[in-house]
Amino acid sequence: MDLFLLKNKFLLRKDISFLNFGSFGACARPVFERYQQYQLEMEEEPLHFMMEKGLAYLKQAREALAKFINCHADDVVYVTNPSYGVNIIAKSFPLQPGDEVLTTNLEYGACDRAWKYYCKQKGATYKQCAIQLPLQSRQDFITQLSAGINNKTRLIFLSHITSATALKLPVEEICALARKKNIPVFIDGAHAPGHIQLDLAALGADIYTGACHKWMMTPKGSSFLYVCKELQNLMDPLLISWGYDAIAPSHSRFLDYHEMQGTRDFSAFLTIPDAIAFMQKYNWPEVSRQCRDLVKQNASRFCDLLHTKPLAPLTDEFIAQMFSVEIITENTLQLHDLFFKEYKIQVPIMQLGDKKFLRYSIQAFNCQHDLDRLYDAVKELISKNIVNIN
Amino acid sequence: MDLFLLKNKFLLRKDISFLNFGSFGACARPVFERYQQYQLEMEEEPLHFMMEKGLAYLKQAREALAKFINCHADDVVYVTNPSYGVNIIAKSFPLQPGDEVLTTNLEYGACDRAWKYYCKQKGATYKQCAIQLPLQSRQDFITQLSAGINNKTRLIFLSHITSATALKLPVEEICALARKKNIPVFIDGAHAPGHIQLDLAALGADIYTGACHKWMMTPKGSSFLYVCKELQNLMDPLLISWGYDAIAPSHSRFLDYHEMQGTRDFSAFLTIPDAIAFMQKYNWPEVSRQCRDLVKQNASRFCDLLHTKPLAPLTDEFIAQMFSVEIITENTLQLHDLFFKEYKIQVPIMQLGDKKFLRYSIQAFNCQHDLDRLYDAVKELISKNIVNIN
Repeated sequence: MDLFLLKNKFLLRKDISFLNFGSFGACARPVFERYQQYQLEMEEEPLHFMMEKGLAYLKQAREALAKFINCHADDVVYVTNPSYGVNIIAKSFPLQPGDEVLTTNLEYGACDRAWKYYCKQKGATYKQCAIQLPLQSRQDFITQLSAGINNKTRLIFLSHITSATALKLPVEEICALARKKNIPVFIDGAHAPGHIQLDLAALGADIYTGACHKWMMTPKGSSFLYVCKELQNLMDPLLISWGYDAIAPSHSRFLDYHEMQGTRDFSAFLTIPDAIAFMQKYNWPEVSRQCRDLVKQNASRFCDLLHTKPLAPLTDEFIAQMFSVEIITENTLQLHDLFFKEYKIQVPIMQLGDKKFLRYSIQAFNCQHDLDRLYDAVKELISKNIVNIN
Repeated sequence: MDLFLLKNKFLLRKDISFLNFGSFGACARPVFERYQQYQLEMEEEPLHFMMEKGLAYLKQAREALAKFINCHADDVVYVTNPSYGVNIIAKSFPLQPGDEVLTTNLEYGACDRAWKYYCKQKGATYKQCAIQLPLQSRQDFITQLSAGINNKTRLIFLSHITSATALKLPVEEICALARKKNIPVFIDGAHAPGHIQLDLAALGADIYTGACHKWMMTPKGSSFLYVCKELQNLMDPLLISWGYDAIAPSHSRFLDYHEMQGTRDFSAFLTIPDAIAFMQKYNWPEVSRQCRDLVKQNASRFCDLLHTKPLAPLTDEFIAQMFSVEIITENTLQLHDLFFKEYKIQVPIMQLGDKKFLRYSIQAFNCQHDLDRLYDAVKELISKNIVNIN
């Protein structure tokens, strides 16, 4: 597959080097078209759509998604975004005063906020294990995180691929290790589905949330939450509506609780089968491989330019279609705007603790030229002292 | 304005008599087109849209909405639907064990569920005052509800227009009465904006939630929550995200808390100015008046046919563009399907307690013919003993 041919399958502006697929994704054209067709179909008979036909589509889409991520269709519900999924769990997960939720200092800020809010409410601790970077190996991470486990640990919450640092974490090993200790694991897979191979059955996480609107290329606001059967009944809906104490309960309280969320446009969820078909049609494993190669081939170059080291070994173990490199600059917003307005590059500068990271994402529509433009821009900004080097 | 001319301004199927505008509304064509244009604009540069341009549109839309409902633009936030607004309040409104939230037995079931859930959690009581129907006068309702007020009443929660019974309640008088007793009032205006004149400053409710996707004809998932300045700081976000403990707080914590809800398609909110412009262009006060007249002219006919009495005097004081008449039938779902499939009529049968109501809504695209079809269908279903009469 020639990546260049895929450029026209997206609606993105042609004048911008779009290197921030990681934040909000970008909809594949046929998926977007199908999205708007569903919306039109809904408007033609809103009642029939919202109460019958649309619900049948919703079920089909859930089944297709479940197959794609390898779980039972009744164990996964749609949520607007992964933060929504985290909120459901953080609100309801039973925690007593003194209990701990173990996590890292690499997590997404919105999720940190949800956990801190609910842990505080329950007198529990959100324990953000400070992970020493760069990681030397998967075992290095496992050793660091597991040092935080103790007899108060009730849950481990961990990104599959981190946001600011773009690191694929060894979640498989953490799940196996936690299982032995009888500690449930909740994986935040905001960046995972469609980006890396995802097999929930093989992974064995007890809870998993993922975005479809990023690497699966569906419209914004389409994500999912998986909860293993054993824990489903613990989770109250975030929005208490008709599904709570339902008049005509379905076979699954889990679905009733979380799928019935009042009037909304749920068309984005319906496009999931189209997104999966799109990936199949264009041989996505191969597209992904080409993208990963591009990411890795350029990684050292950016590290050298910015006088820094990679945050982990430059292998498929840690790196997929995103790469973060530390960058030193006074004003993050100004730098982002400069990239966008002066250089026509859309690339994020991510803040994490007291550090900043330039994160590039590579998707089907990108090519070496985009990264060369970024490289030249950074070089020029270094010469202008807008980007500093150690 | 000839209502017939407005029929083409909607996307509804032409073969159906659509008499259920009340449930999910129906998008006006230019508003729907604008909706999809915003979505396309978002896809062309997702980052720029989600972080900058779209936020400016969002602010403009909020200002237009605030002007339309007469409140300060910083006192209103978007929510997906009124149930979402009710959930925000029910979760956060400070209630102690023994406190009471006073309401009626005419409220929307999803909202009842939210209040019951959170009242139970806090040891408070959700006190559903049983309103005796038919109402004789506005004073009749006021007398009945105020009998429920006591020194444990912390909040009055009330529909502006009820769902199953389609009654416009005397919320103005209730707000005035409650103010004297220093009890805040929360009005559920799911059916109000765009349906009846709405002036929040004149009304004086402390909290108000309304749907834009019903009578304002915007896309599904666009609603609002107004909270008076004095109470804003009590309300935590339903979804804890970046706006909670914000890195760069705006001038309003209320906006930060409730507007920053993670990645979603917020285009529906952006169409609000277009919806308002649409109503202005077609002289909506006059369209509404014609619709109300049609509702009232047919009301007695349906009461007579079904051997029942109106639930309130057939005046503008109680009736707007919806009318509910009690109907006796064994199987509500079957009856709905018969109307839809056999008679090509989309009309709901609403359940409330042990009673059922046939509720017709009249909007710009309806005409006498739609109600005649409904009348004939009901008559035939009576003759077939599918609808029973007392």
